[in-house]
Amino acid sequence: MEKLEKLYEGKAKKLYATNDPDILWVEYMNQATAGNGAKKAQIEGKGELNNHITSVIFDLLKARGVESHFVQRLSDTEQLVRRMDMFPLEIIMRNTAAGSFAKRYGVAEGTELKKPILEFCVKSDELGDPFINDDGIIALGLASEEELATISRQARAVNDALLDIFTKIGVQLVDFKIEEGKTGDGKILLADEITPDTCRLWNKGSKDGKVEHLDKDLFRRDLGDIIPAYEDIYARLTALAKDEGITPSA
Amino acid sequence: MEKLEKLYEGKAKKLYATNDPDILWVEYMNQATAGNGAKKAQIEGKGELNNHITSVIFDLLKARGVESHFVQRLSDTEQLVRRMDMFPLEIIMRNTAAGSFAKRYGVAEGTELKKPILEFCVKSDELGDPFINDDGIIALGLASEEELATISRQARAVNDALLDIFTKIGVQLVDFKIEEGKTGDGKILLADEITPDTCRLWNKGSKDGKVEHLDKDLFRRDLGDIIPAYEDIYARLTALAKDEGITPSA
Repeated sequence: MEKLEKLYEGKAKKLYATNDPDILWVEYMNQATAGNGAKKAQIEGKGELNNHITSVIFDLLKARGVESHFVQRLSDTEQLVRRMDMFPLEIIMRNTAAGSFAKRYGVAEGTELKKPILEFCVKSDELGDPFINDDGIIALGLASEEELATISRQARAVNDALLDIFTKIGVQLVDFKIEEGKTGDGKILLADEITPDTCRLWNKGSKDGKVEHLDKDLFRRDLGDIIPAYEDIYARLTALAKDEGITPSA
Repeated sequence: MEKLEKLYEGKAKKLYATNDPDILWVEYMNQATAGNGAKKAQIEGKGELNNHITSVIFDLLKARGVESHFVQRLSDTEQLVRRMDMFPLEIIMRNTAAGSFAKRYGVAEGTELKKPILEFCVKSDELGDPFINDDGIIALGLASEEELATISRQARAVNDALLDIFTKIGVQLVDFKIEEGKTGDGKILLADEITPDTCRLWNKGSKDGKVEHLDKDLFRRDLGDIIPAYEDIYARLTALAKDEGITPSA
């Protein structure tokens, strides 16, 4: 596989073309951002950890019947994924009230929700990624009614599988963000990444009942160094993958 | 029917108990507000016009099979309605992009939507009436899944009936806000008011293609006096009701 021209540079990843038109080459960067890029830092080791973490999570999901764009990890900071036509949507699943949801509705962080909540935001830095509902997505043509039904079904399946994974490693999956896209032959698939950058992960059974963040809120809220937390998540995930006899796609 | 103690004073209406526990006495006020109360004015004649307009609209809806809480008009500024346990939701239907929707998604005002959009906001002055989706409503216990399905079906039926009414009087129904509640015996019904305070109404076939507002945007955006516009809407609606042989519930 040959790495060709750069196609896109986001906040945490660079995407390159390859000699296979259906495959992209992803490079994970050390940049951390928060508040739509208002807060920014270089954190040594973050790109490497996220590349490893999302790879093992995609493998663990595959073992649970959840397909994704992931092909294989290439190096500490690089992986191959299927080329997709992305929906311009941030897809958010919430099991516990936190972050923007808690603030928006005046609900205490940590409040259990009666059912998992699926939310969509339009991916748009200029508009500040505005919240949108199903009718809005269809009316603005961001996805068809049929595509949206598939995306929603897949997002809930990803949540079920991730709940199983994180429960097994002693972590509370509070909420997470994914993206979905469509392959050249029209198949809708989970894409982007699943890492402590894109999930809220709280350590279970932390003493004194205080929330112990194992995710990017450590950076967002200046609560401490993210690297030991990300290393902890990675160690627990690899132990689970080993227990389950999963051979890394590397 | 006897008017008893005041139960509630909102921005545009006062509600009183009556000697019938299932009936409330509503008084329409002249107060106009915008931006969650940030802009406020007394506009002579507004309460009277809105009381008349919403009464004739509820009658026109009834003739189209859409029930509401409306019982009868009592005087120029008063009416009787069924007492309801209100859902804490603003229920918004949009046929054309305008207002907060247009701003939120960067869409030009007047853009036709591929399908009518149903939106919900939590009624909360402190939180600024935040936008919420179906999952959020159910997870926060603001309505049950079954109640929400009924509310949504009724909101779309109200839109269909109002589109018929306003098309017949040469007015484009851009969007509107309603509220719904539950009667003592558990029946979910359209409540609150339907007036140029709560609808965006654009005159059809205005010369030079410019939007001619016949609604509260005249006040919100300092575009002119609302009274002649509200009088125009009222005159057209009464002419339609007369054409349809509707006897006012007064």
